[in-house]
Amino acid sequence: MRYEEFTIEGRNAVLEAFRSGRPIDRVFILDGCKDGPIQTILKEARKREVLINFVKKERLDQLSETGKHQGVVAQAAAYEYAQVEDMLEAARAKGEDPFLFLLDGIEDPHNLGAIIRTANLAGAHGVIIPKRRAVGLTAVVAKTSAGALNYTPVARVTNLSAEIEELKKKGLWFVCAAMDGDVMYRCNLKGPIGLVIGSEGDGVSRLVREKCDMTASIPMKGDIDSLNASVAAGVLAYEVVRQRMMG
Amino acid sequence: MRYEEFTIEGRNAVLEAFRSGRPIDRVFILDGCKDGPIQTILKEARKREVLINFVKKERLDQLSETGKHQGVVAQAAAYEYAQVEDMLEAARAKGEDPFLFLLDGIEDPHNLGAIIRTANLAGAHGVIIPKRRAVGLTAVVAKTSAGALNYTPVARVTNLSAEIEELKKKGLWFVCAAMDGDVMYRCNLKGPIGLVIGSEGDGVSRLVREKCDMTASIPMKGDIDSLNASVAAGVLAYEVVRQRMMG
Repeated sequence: MRYEEFTIEGRNAVLEAFRSGRPIDRVFILDGCKDGPIQTILKEARKREVLINFVKKERLDQLSETGKHQGVVAQAAAYEYAQVEDMLEAARAKGEDPFLFLLDGIEDPHNLGAIIRTANLAGAHGVIIPKRRAVGLTAVVAKTSAGALNYTPVARVTNLSAEIEELKKKGLWFVCAAMDGDVMYRCNLKGPIGLVIGSEGDGVSRLVREKCDMTASIPMKGDIDSLNASVAAGVLAYEVVRQRMMG
Repeated sequence: MRYEEFTIEGRNAVLEAFRSGRPIDRVFILDGCKDGPIQTILKEARKREVLINFVKKERLDQLSETGKHQGVVAQAAAYEYAQVEDMLEAARAKGEDPFLFLLDGIEDPHNLGAIIRTANLAGAHGVIIPKRRAVGLTAVVAKTSAGALNYTPVARVTNLSAEIEELKKKGLWFVCAAMDGDVMYRCNLKGPIGLVIGSEGDGVSRLVREKCDMTASIPMKGDIDSLNASVAAGVLAYEVVRQRMMG
């Protein structure tokens, strides 16, 4: 999987990008801008569930590479998101139980990159992220993944709970990370598993959590609230690795 | 422990800061500047093993808050580094075996902050960093530690290998993280332990590694080289936690 990030600037260019079906992560629009072409861009963005940010002119000027943004800048990735089915197929091909990461709203690109890196090294078959309220595959993600993005497929789904339902039918179990769960060392994390990691601030959302079969917690012995999201994902992922390795 | 970062600008202010014994992390000096006061500042900086960076005027202007840097800007922290002995005392007071992190050259402040955060939650009694070739307690570190810097003491030592020697006399065992070590699940990580984590690029240095009693590896099942340093520290630290908890 090759990856390249680029910005698309100006009304026609952004509209054309939408119409050609190019995957767009995010669109920035000048606050207060409401004319026809902008309305069309907004409609296209909503249809494709692209994140929309209304920003001040200074922010647009900063994002712009050409200086000619006409009130709209889109961020796109030449990276093609994978399909969840491909991940299951990769597991089958290796003769392994599927091991997937599901990220419920990770917003920090450094964390997303580090988690994809961890997923690769922990032997996971893919990472599933939601389309909304989460960072996509930006240049920072690609960089902090340290190359893992070239190997570990990332899929984007509209609805994480619905995806969990689908995957349950295919035999996966789901464990979500939460403070009030059972200590992870005592959970059975073997077999076909989906590891659900919550967002930096809010953890796993209620709807997603209700779909999970188990809730596992990392023992917390200190004074502060929580681990960094990518560290927590790593600690949990390696508990899965340990249980798989040590039988 | 309260923490505040500040810059000190101008020759007299920087010299005065050195003379008052204020802890200074780093000093930036205009490239090519060689007059008397600058020589004195360089001498003081070397005596205290403060990092010295020779930079262009544009960089100094950027670092300067007053615009009157006279060719020199120092970065200092109002944070007081702890003593290693205090960490051992904290362990004794809690009736626990000492559990220390030793970081051999972590250069990324985000990683250092995340590791201090992990150390806190894994129940470690402190973090030891070297004075040279490593990031100190900067504002970014304080922020990414998510408050852990207020609870988990950080000591700075001149020589990490010598410190390991000293701590061995006090009954600690040292395990260093390296790719070619024994799988961590099979290492005995119980008892009074120092966990040695290497730098992002180079891992644990040879001299430090030779002082360690064990080398533990995190199983790597993927296509890329290594985990993010703070994730690796977290995974190893929680293997220590598991062995301590599960007996």
